[in-house]
This record gives sequence, C-alpha cells and structure tokens, in this order.
Amino acid sequence: MRQYVLVSYDIGDPKRWRKVFKLMKGYGDHVQYSVFICQLTGVQEAELKAKLEDIVHHKQDQVMFVQIGPVTKNQLDKRISTVGKEYLPRDITKLIY
Amino acid sequence: MRQYVLVSYDIGDPKRWRKVFKLMKGYGDHVQYSVFICQLTGVQEAELKAKLEDIVHHKQDQVMFVQIGPVTKNQLDKRISTVGKEYLPRDITKLIY
Repeated sequence: MRQYVLVSYDIGDPKRWRKVFKLMKGYGDHVQYSVFICQLTGVQEAELKAKLEDIVHHKQDQVMFVQIGPVTKNQLDKRISTVGKEYLPRDITKLIY
Repeated sequence: MRQYVLVSYDIGDPKRWRKVFKLMKGYGDHVQYSVFICQLTGVQEAELKAKLEDIVHHKQDQVMFVQIGPVTKNQLDKRISTVGKEYLPRDITKLIY
C-alpha cells in the first residue's frame, strides 16, 4: 500500500540542492521551499533513497523521510493544517487516492 | 495524549523568520533549517497556532503542521529515516516519552 511520506532536506551546496529538487519533482508534490509530500510504495521509497545516496554529501546534507500514513482520501486532510497560506498541493490530483 | 507534530515553515521575511524560529524553540526540537519536531497536546498546538497567527503574514508565509503519531518511545524511530546525516534531535530527552 502507498504511504504519504513527507520529505524535507537541508543541503549544504546550491548545486546539490538543485539536483535533489529536480529528482524530488519526479516523486511528489513541492509544498514548501525544501519540502515535498509524496505517495510512495516501499519500492519507490527505496529507489528514491538510492538515487539520493549518489547526490548528497553524507556529512553536510540531510534528507529526512517522515511517514505520515497510508494513502487514503482524507488521511492527509486530517494530518495537515497550516497557519498563514493554505495547504494547497500544486497537483492535488496526485494526492487524491 | 501528546502527539508528535512536525512543523515546517516558509516565511517571506527574515525578521518574521527569526520570530517564528524563536517561538518554535520553546515548543520542540530544531531538526532542520525550517523544521521542528514537537510533542504537543491539543491545547499546546492551539496555543502555538494562536501565537503564530500574530507573527506570520497570511498571504506570504506558511507554517505547516503535520501530525506524525502519538508520543510513544519507538513511534518516531519507525516513522523517520534519513539519507545523509543521521536524524539526531538536539535534545533527545525531550522526545523520549
């Protein structure tokens, strides 16, 4: 079953930051400057992590994966709230199960 | 029951960013540049949101709250993984139930 996974990253170098950003765009929705929310199977998550291993600097950078919960229609609405701008994933269709 | 809540923010102005950062330091653990992980009761979350309402610019800024799960000893370890630097909350004692 697919999981909603929040991926946020601190990357110490602009060139590496752009590489991570480009890779992440293929795996989920860009919701904040360095934060994506993805819908991933276990295989997809492992694949993404393997690709990130080749990009990041293991002492300077960190890409954090946070499991939010199974992909169900209202799972995300219950778990995410905001102050300020609303939470509006760019491509809402991708998040609707 | 307390929940683990990830709080990440995009703030359009450095002065407001510092105010949010200062406020957040009293509510949780600073884990990435604009990301905190907190252990909050419902009341604490509401209190934090009310304080943030007074700081943020509602059209330019966004503070996102993501419910991770109930505060139990190994809840967080199961939900968080990293590529690159390990996930080491600055104050691990605060996260141990």
